[in-house]
Amino acid sequence: MATPQVTSRILRRLLASGVTGRAERLLGRMAPSDVALLLPELTPDEIRAVIELLFRQRRAALALRELPNEMLPLVYDALADQRLAAVIGRLEIDDLLEFVEFIPEDRRDSVIERLPEDKREELRKAELYSESSAGRVMTTSFIALDQKMRAQEAIDSLREVGDGSEAVLYLYVIDEQTTLVGVVPLRRLVASPPDRLISEIMIPDPVSVSADDDQEEVANLVARFDLLAVPVTDVDGRMLGLITVDDVIDVITEEATEDMYHLAGLTEADRVFVPAHESIRKRLPWMFLNLATCFAAAWVVGLFERTIEQVVALAIFMPVVAGMGGNGGTQSLTVITRAIALGEIEFSSAFRAVMKELAVGLVLGIAMGICSAGIAYLWHADPIIGVALFSAMILTLSVAGLMGAAVPLALKALKQDPALGAGVIVTTFTDAFAFFSFLGIATLLMDRVVS
Amino acid sequence: MATPQVTSRILRRLLASGVTGRAERLLGRMAPSDVALLLPELTPDEIRAVIELLFRQRRAALALRELPNEMLPLVYDALADQRLAAVIGRLEIDDLLEFVEFIPEDRRDSVIERLPEDKREELRKAELYSESSAGRVMTTSFIALDQKMRAQEAIDSLREVGDGSEAVLYLYVIDEQTTLVGVVPLRRLVASPPDRLISEIMIPDPVSVSADDDQEEVANLVARFDLLAVPVTDVDGRMLGLITVDDVIDVITEEATEDMYHLAGLTEADRVFVPAHESIRKRLPWMFLNLATCFAAAWVVGLFERTIEQVVALAIFMPVVAGMGGNGGTQSLTVITRAIALGEIEFSSAFRAVMKELAVGLVLGIAMGICSAGIAYLWHADPIIGVALFSAMILTLSVAGLMGAAVPLALKALKQDPALGAGVIVTTFTDAFAFFSFLGIATLLMDRVVS
Repeated sequence: MATPQVTSRILRRLLASGVTGRAERLLGRMAPSDVALLLPELTPDEIRAVIELLFRQRRAALALRELPNEMLPLVYDALADQRLAAVIGRLEIDDLLEFVEFIPEDRRDSVIERLPEDKREELRKAELYSESSAGRVMTTSFIALDQKMRAQEAIDSLREVGDGSEAVLYLYVIDEQTTLVGVVPLRRLVASPPDRLISEIMIPDPVSVSADDDQEEVANLVARFDLLAVPVTDVDGRMLGLITVDDVIDVITEEATEDMYHLAGLTEADRVFVPAHESIRKRLPWMFLNLATCFAAAWVVGLFERTIEQVVALAIFMPVVAGMGGNGGTQSLTVITRAIALGEIEFSSAFRAVMKELAVGLVLGIAMGICSAGIAYLWHADPIIGVALFSAMILTLSVAGLMGAAVPLALKALKQDPALGAGVIVTTFTDAFAFFSFLGIATLLMDRVVS
Repeated sequence: MATPQVTSRILRRLLASGVTGRAERLLGRMAPSDVALLLPELTPDEIRAVIELLFRQRRAALALRELPNEMLPLVYDALADQRLAAVIGRLEIDDLLEFVEFIPEDRRDSVIERLPEDKREELRKAELYSESSAGRVMTTSFIALDQKMRAQEAIDSLREVGDGSEAVLYLYVIDEQTTLVGVVPLRRLVASPPDRLISEIMIPDPVSVSADDDQEEVANLVARFDLLAVPVTDVDGRMLGLITVDDVIDVITEEATEDMYHLAGLTEADRVFVPAHESIRKRLPWMFLNLATCFAAAWVVGLFERTIEQVVALAIFMPVVAGMGGNGGTQSLTVITRAIALGEIEFSSAFRAVMKELAVGLVLGIAMGICSAGIAYLWHADPIIGVALFSAMILTLSVAGLMGAAVPLALKALKQDPALGAGVIVTTFTDAFAFFSFLGIATLLMDRVVS
């Protein structure tokens, strides 16, 4: 497969020389995801031409689906409202919802107005579901069967629908009230004798999710049961749509990115090739928050200015206690945040997890306390520094384990994102605590030695 | 669905009172993944009894597949070698490979010897592939078609094979040399007229991966093309097996965990409910590494002991520069590591990414430098501290952006894991640099004021 750079050069030459037929054939041979990789290499005029060509082949919507979200403005700028509406009007509702969000606000209403009536209706309905709920990621097209059909009839009805619907991995059996009563995996349908009744083949009471369920929980469910799709129902068990495994992969990837970003103090849209000024704008609030917490730590150090004046060497070892505390806190925080994301931890087991991290912190604190006190004593031969370092290390690493585990669990209990802000809270607290315990113990010891 | 606690209580009572028939029925109604959730709640004796019952139903292997890897020793301890070999002998090769790794070394050979001959052979072959390669995660059972078959014949051959093979989402068309020539999605086969030739239905030259490809790249490919499975071939294009989307989800989840763990200085097997002594043993080496880097930072501070003696207030602002540097470095590191993992960054674009992070760091450094110098001046009214803080902040945040982006890309270029150790390297460097620039500039300014 040629690289996007090479392909874009060929495509450019074809477009410039007006041989659109050959450009169209080249695009026709490419996978939608490769077309998506190509777009960022082109100028707005070229993008417009490519979208035109794809549009003729009814493939513009497919290429759009594969485009990273940050690239969407590029395409949107190249298309007039009418054209854009025609392109995204071909998308399934789950993708459509996502793309509408990226249309600049001043154009959004105008584009939506130009969508086909049925898509506009679907969009209105989908927007009733809360963000990151199952209702937002589901697709509403699925193939429904009747219990009294025979296997061959079901296969024949599939032939009528033809290829193309992403939904045909499972067929869903519904009753007159559209209540979901069973599921027939396509592979099972095909393997069944032609005259077997659907009610005999179907898996009754299939796993399903509610439209209000959180998309991360849905993703964990699909992963746990190795499903290819999961049906979405309303409170009365009526089938509304389904979530397919490719959407689940997107959810899993996005949620992992979100957790990593939140732990590092980043906003999700701040991706590698977002323009620098965008990244700066998105990181500034986090930087200010961090600056405030750094000054809080500085304030704690300031409380002990007198002590440092007497024993300047204390300033040398401050980074050791704070650095180790930050490290320990981040370790516990990462283990717990990941466990929450993967659904490995329940409220019943939360206390056990916090106690474990506290115990681990305590033991590591003793080990690190002995080592650092030893090194410090060999370096500076001041018993006060040694004792202060030893005790502060034990206290700080214990507190770091406790906070690293308790903060994300507390955020989760408060129905907040367990990762969001947890990094800042834990680091601030352990830093301030490290300075307070180290310098505080040193002050007490010095008072005792002096008195 | 009853919680594992409730179910385990019922199950216990049934087992204790010897009503194994009812216990067997209870287990029979449960999904394998729920059985897996149940096992950690039981004693070794009860686990043995449950595995026996599952074994009668030929479902022990399924339950085992759903068990988190950390729980495997629990099950292994409860089973004699012969029994264990019989249970895992039912697994597909990709799962078998994973489970064999968790058998205690002193038992491994004995268990492998007791596996059925064909499984032993498959295992030997699979172990030839390097770790985390496609060959290790692929399953070797798939349904192969001939180009000259008709659609109905293919469907009939599927009926003969029956339900149960996880592979039947796509059918693979191979020639006499078993070279992969096409793929037929099951949904397309079913939708085709019965007398259509396979060669007319199949998608020729399908996307495939080589057995030596890295499993993370395979996962990105499947995610990008929204595939449900991808065929694995050898260097000559002969079909060896396939990787299904449920394995891809496992790979994506594992790789995300790995990256988060490596950034935080953690070993993967250190999960939330691993016993505390295991966690301590796994974290100790990271802690020692971190202690060494903390003392390196302390050594840098020590170079400026005289300066701090003269202006003790400098010690107060040390945490501000170091904290902000660490924060900025972590931000850049996270953005770049995530982009590498998702395949969003190529060697051709790596330089652009590094330059962007440097530019973002520079601008954020100017903003934070102005703020922190202002606050410091209001607090301590010492122009030397203000100027040193301003300049050090700009230098440190620029260096943090540069290192945060360059270190993971350099590790990747050296064919190392981009996340492993990157956190420690970046934090150490920014910490030491923060102290060196802040205290160094203060020293220069003081010399100038004095002279």
